[in-house]
Order: sequence, then C-alpha cells, then structure tokens
Amino acid sequence: MQKFFYPRRVAVVGVSEDPANLAQGIVANLLHFKYQGKIFLVGRRPGATYGLPIFSRLSDLPEPVDLAAILAPARVVPALVRECGELGISRVVVESAGFSELDDAGRGLEEEIRAALTHYGMRLVGPNGLGLVNLEIGLALPFAQMQPFPRPGRISIIAQSGGVATHVLAWMSKEGLGLNKFFSLGNKLDVAENEVLEYLLEDPGTGAIYVYLEGLQDGRGLLAVADKATKPVYLHMANVGPETATIAQSHTASLTTDERVLEAACRQSRLIRVKTQSEFLNAARLVGQPPVRGNRVVVFSRSGGEAVVTADACRRFGFTLPPLSETLVQDITARSRAGVIHPTNPIDLGDIFDFNVYLDIMASACRDPEVDAVLFHYGPIMADIEQEAAREMARRMVELAREAQKPLAITVLCTLNEADYLRDDLGIPVFHFPEEAVQALAVSRDLAARGESRGLAEPPPLPEAATVAETLTGSKPGGFLPLAQALTVIGALGLDLAPWAATATPEAAAAAAGRLGFPVVLKLSAPSLVHKTEAGGVILNLPDAAAVQDAFNRLAQVALSHLPPQEAWQVVVMSQVAGGQEVLLGARRDDSFGPVVAFGAGGVDTEILDDVALRVAPLNPAQARDLMAETRIGRILAGARGRPPAGLDSLSRALTALSQLMLHFPYLREVDLNPVRVFPGKPGILALDARIRLDD
Amino acid sequence: MQKFFYPRRVAVVGVSEDPANLAQGIVANLLHFKYQGKIFLVGRRPGATYGLPIFSRLSDLPEPVDLAAILAPARVVPALVRECGELGISRVVVESAGFSELDDAGRGLEEEIRAALTHYGMRLVGPNGLGLVNLEIGLALPFAQMQPFPRPGRISIIAQSGGVATHVLAWMSKEGLGLNKFFSLGNKLDVAENEVLEYLLEDPGTGAIYVYLEGLQDGRGLLAVADKATKPVYLHMANVGPETATIAQSHTASLTTDERVLEAACRQSRLIRVKTQSEFLNAARLVGQPPVRGNRVVVFSRSGGEAVVTADACRRFGFTLPPLSETLVQDITARSRAGVIHPTNPIDLGDIFDFNVYLDIMASACRDPEVDAVLFHYGPIMADIEQEAAREMARRMVELAREAQKPLAITVLCTLNEADYLRDDLGIPVFHFPEEAVQALAVSRDLAARGESRGLAEPPPLPEAATVAETLTGSKPGGFLPLAQALTVIGALGLDLAPWAATATPEAAAAAAGRLGFPVVLKLSAPSLVHKTEAGGVILNLPDAAAVQDAFNRLAQVALSHLPPQEAWQVVVMSQVAGGQEVLLGARRDDSFGPVVAFGAGGVDTEILDDVALRVAPLNPAQARDLMAETRIGRILAGARGRPPAGLDSLSRALTALSQLMLHFPYLREVDLNPVRVFPGKPGILALDARIRLDD
Repeated sequence: MQKFFYPRRVAVVGVSEDPANLAQGIVANLLHFKYQGKIFLVGRRPGATYGLPIFSRLSDLPEPVDLAAILAPARVVPALVRECGELGISRVVVESAGFSELDDAGRGLEEEIRAALTHYGMRLVGPNGLGLVNLEIGLALPFAQMQPFPRPGRISIIAQSGGVATHVLAWMSKEGLGLNKFFSLGNKLDVAENEVLEYLLEDPGTGAIYVYLEGLQDGRGLLAVADKATKPVYLHMANVGPETATIAQSHTASLTTDERVLEAACRQSRLIRVKTQSEFLNAARLVGQPPVRGNRVVVFSRSGGEAVVTADACRRFGFTLPPLSETLVQDITARSRAGVIHPTNPIDLGDIFDFNVYLDIMASACRDPEVDAVLFHYGPIMADIEQEAAREMARRMVELAREAQKPLAITVLCTLNEADYLRDDLGIPVFHFPEEAVQALAVSRDLAARGESRGLAEPPPLPEAATVAETLTGSKPGGFLPLAQALTVIGALGLDLAPWAATATPEAAAAAAGRLGFPVVLKLSAPSLVHKTEAGGVILNLPDAAAVQDAFNRLAQVALSHLPPQEAWQVVVMSQVAGGQEVLLGARRDDSFGPVVAFGAGGVDTEILDDVALRVAPLNPAQARDLMAETRIGRILAGARGRPPAGLDSLSRALTALSQLMLHFPYLREVDLNPVRVFPGKPGILALDARIRLDD
Repeated sequence: MQKFFYPRRVAVVGVSEDPANLAQGIVANLLHFKYQGKIFLVGRRPGATYGLPIFSRLSDLPEPVDLAAILAPARVVPALVRECGELGISRVVVESAGFSELDDAGRGLEEEIRAALTHYGMRLVGPNGLGLVNLEIGLALPFAQMQPFPRPGRISIIAQSGGVATHVLAWMSKEGLGLNKFFSLGNKLDVAENEVLEYLLEDPGTGAIYVYLEGLQDGRGLLAVADKATKPVYLHMANVGPETATIAQSHTASLTTDERVLEAACRQSRLIRVKTQSEFLNAARLVGQPPVRGNRVVVFSRSGGEAVVTADACRRFGFTLPPLSETLVQDITARSRAGVIHPTNPIDLGDIFDFNVYLDIMASACRDPEVDAVLFHYGPIMADIEQEAAREMARRMVELAREAQKPLAITVLCTLNEADYLRDDLGIPVFHFPEEAVQALAVSRDLAARGESRGLAEPPPLPEAATVAETLTGSKPGGFLPLAQALTVIGALGLDLAPWAATATPEAAAAAAGRLGFPVVLKLSAPSLVHKTEAGGVILNLPDAAAVQDAFNRLAQVALSHLPPQEAWQVVVMSQVAGGQEVLLGARRDDSFGPVVAFGAGGVDTEILDDVALRVAPLNPAQARDLMAETRIGRILAGARGRPPAGLDSLSRALTALSQLMLHFPYLREVDLNPVRVFPGKPGILALDARIRLDD
C-alpha cells in the first residue's frame, strides 16, 4: 500500500492531445495538487499536453517509474499491464471501465490481467474506478475534476463508487472537513477494502476513515481488521436490499448485503455504521475531538427555543441533562440583567449578554466530573458590536475544553460568517441544527461505550463432532435433512429435544407413543419434505394408540402423494409439550459475514412479532446472553416483573453450540429450531422442531 | 387576523435615540422590507431615528393607526395597551418579555392586559415574541435583525420561539425557500396557534405552513382546524419529553406534550409531523410540486453509485422501482456509447453523455401511468462544454413534468452552481443527497395517501349512561374507583367481564365462588387500594370453598394493614379464566388532545412488549379496526397464518364504548382494562381487571 500512496515517479497512460481525452484529467489533477514527484505521459500518438511530452511507449520513458495510472480502452489494458510487469513497474492503477461489471468478455480481460499480476508479482487498483489520492504529497490520480478541490486534513476515504466519493468529497470541502487519502476500489480485481483499511488504520496522517461499499467480499476479514481500529471507521454499506442488487451488480459487480446481519456485525465490532452520506458528514465534524465518555450533556443557548429543541434531541439520542452545580446556579441568577432566567440544564441564556457568564458556565461544565460533553447554541452575534468579544470568548472556550479533554460542539445560525471562523480558525465542531450536533455526540459516545472489541473468539472444539459428522454423511447438497436426521444432529449437540422416536410402521409408532406418553404429535420425515405443515405432514393432539396408528396411515398417504417415488421416509413420534413460551434459535451462513446466530420470539407468529436478534459467530455464553437481551422475549425470559427467569443458561449453551456447529461444518447453510419451549422458573428448554439445510 | 397582517398605518412604541434601543430594530426591518403603509414612532423622549420623528405619546400621532407594535418594559405595557384601546387601535403586538414566562408579577401584568383587551374589544399578539411579518406588503415587525433577509415566497410560519423561527428562516433563505407570512406566538396571551392556522389555511398567498410549538393549548381544536387543510401543514412540536419541561415552561410557559399521543393525532389528521427543523426544510422543497400519488419512482443517475444509494433510500422509505418500458429499454441500449449500460430502474446512465436520451427517459417516465415520481441525479456538468445543453435539457424536463402533473426531484452535487439555476430559475426541487430527495417524496406521498381526513366523528350516545353516572356518583376526585365499582361501570358499557361477584363475608365469597365455578380469584376492592397485586390484595388459583374462605380472611388482614381506618372494602370473587391471549384496552385524557383510546399487547409484560397504539377519541368501529391493525398483537389476532381471527368485533365495540365513555364523562381521567383475554376462533372477549381513575 505504501508504494501506491507514496510513489516518486508516476506514468499516466492513455493520454492524447485531443481535448476530450479523459486521461488528461489525471494530469490536470496531479498538476493542480502540486504532486511532489515526477510525472510522465504515455499515449499512442506522440505529442504534448500541459507542457509535458507524450511518449508513445512505456519503455521510452527516460526514467523508471514506480506507478502507472492507466486510462485506455479495456481491450488494450492487459497488454499494458504486462508491459508494466516487464519494465518492473510493480504498482498499477486502472481507471478504465468495460470489465467484469459489463459482460463476459470483460471478465475475460480481468482474468488476463490477474494472470499478469501473479506472473510479475504486481499489485493493481481498479479497474473501473477513480484511482487514488494522497494529499500529503499532492498525488491525485482521478480523471474526474475534483470540484471544489478537497482541502488537506485528517479524513481518508475508501469507496466503491467514484460518484458517491466525489459527492462526499465535495461536501467535505463545503463543510470544512479535510481529506488525507482517497482510494477508489472499482472492481477490486486485486486490492480490496480490507487491505486498504488495514493500511489506513496504521497511517499516521489518517485520523478517521469513511468506507463506502456496495458489496463485501470478506466481511469476517473486515471485522478482524476493524478490531484493531483506534480511530473512527464509518462504514456506509449501500446495496443492502433487493431493489439495488441489479444496478449494483452492473455497476461494480457486487452481491447484496443482508441489512440485519450488517447491523449486527457493526454493533459487535468497532465499525460505526452510517446509512447515508450526510450521516457520515455530520458525525465526522467531531473527528479530532475527545470521545464522549458518557451520557451527560450540558446545553446552553442564547435562544430558549433552540434549548428546548436541543433537549428534545438529547432525549431522543439517550442523553441526560444533569442539574447544574449550586455555585453556578447562584452565579447565573446574580448576573441576569432583568432576572429573566432560570438556571436549569438546558440553560436558556435569555437576556444575559455578558460573555463572561458564558465562560463561567463553560468552565464549570468542564470542571464538573459529572459532565461528558458541552453543547453551546451560539445564536446570532451583532457583527459590529459583539464580534471581537465573541471571538475571544470562543477562543477561551476551546482552551477550556482542551484542558478538560471534553468534547465541545456548537450550533450556529448559518447566517453568521462567524461559523467559518469558529470552525476553520478555532477548530470547533460547528453544526447547522441542534439535532445534528446531538446525533454526532451520540455516535462518538456509542463508539466509546463499546470499549475494546473482544473480536471473534476462537471457537471451542465441538464435543460431539464425530456423531454429527456421521449423521451428515451422504446428505444431499443444497437440500434439507430429513427431520429425524436433523433431530439427531441437534441431540448430538447436547440440546434438549421433546422426547421423540423415528418409526417405520403404525405399530412401532403406537408403541413409541406409549413409551413417550400421550398426547403425541406425528411428523413425516423425508429429504424432500421441506414444508411439513403445509403438506399435511404434521398431525397434532393424538391421545391414544389407535389415533396414532390412524395418523401414521394418513401420513403414509401424504408420503405417497407428495414425495418422489422410492424416496425413503419415516414418521417421527414426539411428545406434545404444553405451556411455556416459544422462542426460536437459528444459525445461517451469510454471504458476506459467514456463520450468523439468531435468537428471538418463536412460534408461527415469528414474522409478525419481528423480534429476532443476530450475531456473527462464534459467540461465547456471555455474548449469547447479550444477544438474548437485545430482544423483547429475551428481556421477558430474564424474569421481568419479579418472575423467575426461564432457561437462560440452557439457551445460551444452545446458542454457542449452534455457533460451533456452523463453524465446524462449513457445508451447513442454515439451522432452525422453532419453536423451542422455555418455562418460567425452570432451567431446561425443549426444542420441538429442527430444520437443517446444507450448502449447494 | 386580516387586520394584523394587512395594517395601513403602524405605530412602533418604545423607540429612543439610544443606539442600544431594541425597538429601533422594528423600524429597521420595516424600512428594509419597504413596508407599504405608514410608520409612526413613539417613545418616552421625543427625538428622531431613521429619519422619522419620535412622538412621546400615542395620542400625539398625526393620523390614526391600525396597529401598535410595543417593545417597552413589561411594567408599562398594560397602560400602553389601555391607551391603544382609548385611541381605537384594535390590534396590538407586544414583543417585550417579563410576563407569565417569568414570575407571578408577570402573570399579574398579563391579567391586566387581558382585562383591557376585553374592555376595549382589542386583539393582541405576544407578549414575549417577535411579532409578525407579511412580506406581501413589507410588514416586518420583529425587533431582531433577519439575516440573511428572507426572500418572498409561498411558505408561512407560526412559531412559539423567535430563536427557532429565525434559525429556520435563515436556512429557508439559504435553501431558496421563500417566506410569505410569519407569526410569532410568544406567550399566546390572546391569539394562539389555531386561530392563525385557520387564517393561513385560507390565505391565498400561503402555499404551505410550518408550525413550531412548545405546547398545545387546544390539541382537539388544532385537529379540527387542520382537517380543512388543502395545503401541507408541517407540525414541529418540541418539548415532548420530561427533560424539556422545565426550560420550555420558563421560556414560554408550556406544558409537555406526550409524544405518542402527538404521533397518533398527526397520523389520524392531515398534519405532517416533523421532528426537526431540517426535516421541515427538506420536505418544504417539494412545496408547489404535484403530490406524489403512489409508490412508484423512476430513478436515473449519471453516477451508478448514487443510483444504488438512491435505490437503498427508496427501499427504506417504502418506494418501489418499477421496470422500464420495452421501448425505452431498447432505446437506451441503442444509444449507449460503449454499450456500458444496463437499462434497469434505477438507471445508471453510465457513459451516455447524450442529453436527448435523458429527455427520452424523462418523457417516457412522465407518460407512464405506472410512475408516480421521477428522481434524477444530475451529477457534475463540465461547465465550459455542457452548461448550455444541460440547462436546455433541464428546462424541457420541467415542462414534461408540468404537463404530466408529476413531481420531479433532482439531486445535485453541491459543487455545481447549476444547482442555484435549477432551483431559482427553473423552480426544480434540488436536494443535496439522494436520501433527502426520497424522504421529501415520502412525506408528500404519505400526505396524499391520507386522502380527506374524516375528522373526529360525532360521538354516538352512550346507551347505559344513566347506570354509569349512578355508579360514579359520590366518587372521590383524583382517586381510583374501588374494583367492584370499576367492574360495574365496565359491565354497564356492555363489555364482557369474567364472571364476578362482590362479597363482604368469607361465607358469601365461598357461596359466590360455588355459583361462578372453581377455580376462582379473590381481589380486595377499596377506594385507596391502587396497586392491588403489590399490596397482596390478589389471591389466585383457589380450588374450593375452604380455600376461598381462607383467602378472604387473608385479604381482610391486608385491608386492616393497608387501608385507612374506617374505609369500606369488599372482596371481588372472579372466575379464573384459562388460555387465550392477553390484550389491553385503555383510555385516558391527554392534556393537549383530550380523550385518547389505546389498544395493545396486555398482561404483565405490556411495557417490555411495547406494542400499544393510540387514537384520539372518538373513534368508530372501522377506526378501531385500524387502530388494532397498527399493533403486532392486532395483526396476530386478525388471523395470521391461516388461524381463525379472535374477538375482533367485540374488541372494536369495546374500544368505541371506551371512547364514548370518556367523551360522556369528562371527569374520568383514565380507564384501563388489562388483561382482556381473547380466544382464537371465538368472537367473545373477557376482561379480567379494570382500573378507573377520576380527574382531580
């Protein structure tokens, strides 16, 4: 990565004298940002542009270069890459489109390039992107004009869309947020997000990172990299729903990400999920400020209304407004011009026009160990009368906050040019509206509250792996296990099932029911029977042996009419369990993040109840408890309103066992236990059904 | 109202030559906005400012004035108001602070003013506000400088905070949104929001209204007024939580509003609830556009990434992206320069630089009856090469949209000065980010989907009003009814209760239990016993007569130890009902909106389940059904997954009965039926408990 971001000599390939030539844009950007290295131009026809000669071949260049930025038709790119390899140019940036995002021919070209990279030991950025930028040395390789020009700063960007990145960059400039490095991923033929992120996390010039992605090749890798983050990483994942899949695929060849898995993955890591560009821009204003270490904010405002609005926002984002200290209350009361003030928090400064009072409040809030952040609504300043005094006050405020290591945010009427002074000259985070300031403080607080990520634990060994493996032997890829097999796997994991037996004749079923105790349930078990209930493959409430035999015969009819000829089937007899509450336990393999474990409200109403929480596996028992506590049913089972808790230990053991199962057997696609019954005051749980699907 | 907004001659009272004199600000604003009427100044000391003479008394003015704007110390205001009355000045605006928002003395001054208003038949705006503005005639009465100066337009503002209004006004100017009228409510001594809103809804100059409130004096009145709205009314209620109550009270003397009631009230009316200033500013960009009549959006974008981001936002806000027509698909494919395009929706324009294609897409989307709105991501335009052609395209787009009566929204890179041209010269709604455009479209769609508000129906008569009234006779204000009385009221309403009887001796209880059938529950019933269960006043699972007598005696002990001496008590014997699902039905009187009816998941876990929906009463059976459908439990009871529905008719009858009860008996504060049991496949319901609280 270092060689990509800090080359000493760069060749721009694909330049011509034609004013419509796109590669000229690269040259223009390098010149504008005063690239500190040397620039060489290469194009099919010799000539000159921007006062630089155009060489017709890379081998004609007078000096060896470290990096080649290529913007030429896709079909000629493989040859150009090989030429770079021959010449020992180990870093290549390809901005041309027309590769895997377009069609099979494009995919073929990428394969050719990949072969060249391996052969010559080269690395490549793109294709189909904007290249990269490092403002520290004026390296700006995008062919598109960057307008307004980014200003140098501490924020770096990794983006899978040039358009989105350009848009964000433009607003960063407008909002006074400076850029350090920018990396356009394009089709990620070689270098992908995780490698760049790992580099930027160590990069001294980078203070925070915005990552825009439309697909994740290796979500678990991302979590592992982000685990080491000591700076904010704002992850903006687009293409998280079915509507976007088509466009994103053609655009950068990405797979849709499951939003709920993404949300869970971010929450359990140090990644900050932002859903929109403006959410990032807003949060980024606090980059460089100390973290918000708790929940307590002091708000003071020159407008009572804005104070109310701010307090509403504080409530919405979970902040509290602690009462002010006695001394401060007295002080404020004494200094109020007409006494028209109530020294509460938020503080409506009302008719106090004495900036020294503002500073006293600020000093007091900074001193107070019970205060985690300060929010000041500046309001309009009478330019001619107050400006100098107001600036002096703001300077002192910054000093006070810095000494106390407390974050300070200011909202300012946009009308005021003072906003630019506060932001650019004093480095105070300035917000347009109170809500935005509070939201940014909340992002900082939530990140600080996560503390050190414990990361993905090493999975403990699976005790009954051999039994499970044996049961799975010979199963059909892509299909579901027959119920009896699925129940055997779950039993082998050590999870408690309602007592059951697999039977092959009406008599055996009746005998088994007699052993298990009536009433029982009969369920048809066969490989191709996925929706048992819908097919009539489940019969409930069987009170005696005769009913069981009769039910067995009905299921035999169902098997005859629903199953392919010759498919083997059995009938599972299971005790019918009364009472308790229904939960679901599940696990599945996510395309981006791998094995994921689920817990939530179960039964037939799972979808309506919409009360399921997820976690990327593996998880330990403590994390399983946290997962359950994220759901309403989990809080109810924990023993709300003085009732005894229900089956929590068993549930957390079951969840960790599912996590281990998925990690140990990578060809398992999905495991669903629904319903699982739990009983207030009892430690045990009983799974009543199990579905296991194998990978294709 | 007309006389407030269109005065011909205005007196500004409280002016002096002192440069720090605040009333001078009023004069400055009137002059800046070129007030079309005559301005007269009044102050204690004669003199002149802004070239106008200062008269020392109102009676000295050379001509009669229609309106007096007063900014003088609070203590002299009552006398000034009386002087206005004597002179026949029927409209007064008071901007001074120091009234009811401050202390008792201030409240006294307001009383004096109120007396004068009644005596002289005058109307008053304020005090403690910024007065009003009508840009149609240049009337601008705020004493504060309005910077940047608002531009004339179609949006009017009613605001309870000068600071918040100024902030919004400043951003309106920055975002190209013009002002028509502005009304600062201040302490609402006389004129309050509903009267102003009613006027502005009829006002031809006003196209949309932003209402900022920190308290609602008459929420039902607001709903009634908003019912007639044929233009968007954006209601921004601040001070909706406990944290803000203190500050808002001192600031404009308001009571906190219950957020959930507010949310329900807006949803059932034509009010658009906005939670922040920026939410309003964003939605307001679409003022003047045709309504979004459905769910289907066509998105096309010069950046693939922005198209993906837009599609994500569409999904989040419930929009669908219908496939493009065959003809259009072929056309796009044919015109693509390198064929690097997939004609899906959203459309990534990729390498199509031909603006005629853009127009074709626009025309096709406008023609298509299956398309409700068009969203175009403009992207950067090469200023020197494309500007003229791009402007011509935009002009044609506006025409196409206008002809088709379809809303068109554009997102633009902020870097582009073209954004101002599109917005100001062509009147196209221009957004900074895709998400914002989609959000604004969603607000318009949701308003259009509400159709004509049916308003608050006339409540039908309460059949058993006499019985209820009799039962309530002699009850203690502010207290709870004893359980037996509460059950009698609920029974009189025609709601089914679990069979019960009130008893006074162990023997009577045992006899009643025998009649009702075992098992039974015993509950202590007494006026001062609010938390029965916590006090040990409920005993469950009594299987026989002996157990009932024993339980009665235990309850007698509880009565002895928990109740005040001499308080009468009884024991309610109730059948213990097994099975079914628990719901809650409730009603309470909200400070702002009056009677509100509630439905949701019941039982002891109500709070954790957090599944309760509200509606401002009255409600008819259809509205009761809608209310239930807003909850998860309601959707489950409706018969999800093929199960038979449970008790819906009975529940909707019960909800309407509660609504009638609250309207009929204004001294009822709260009615709670929790739990009420419902049974799948059965029409009936059984209430197991009832709590009724009376007003103070």
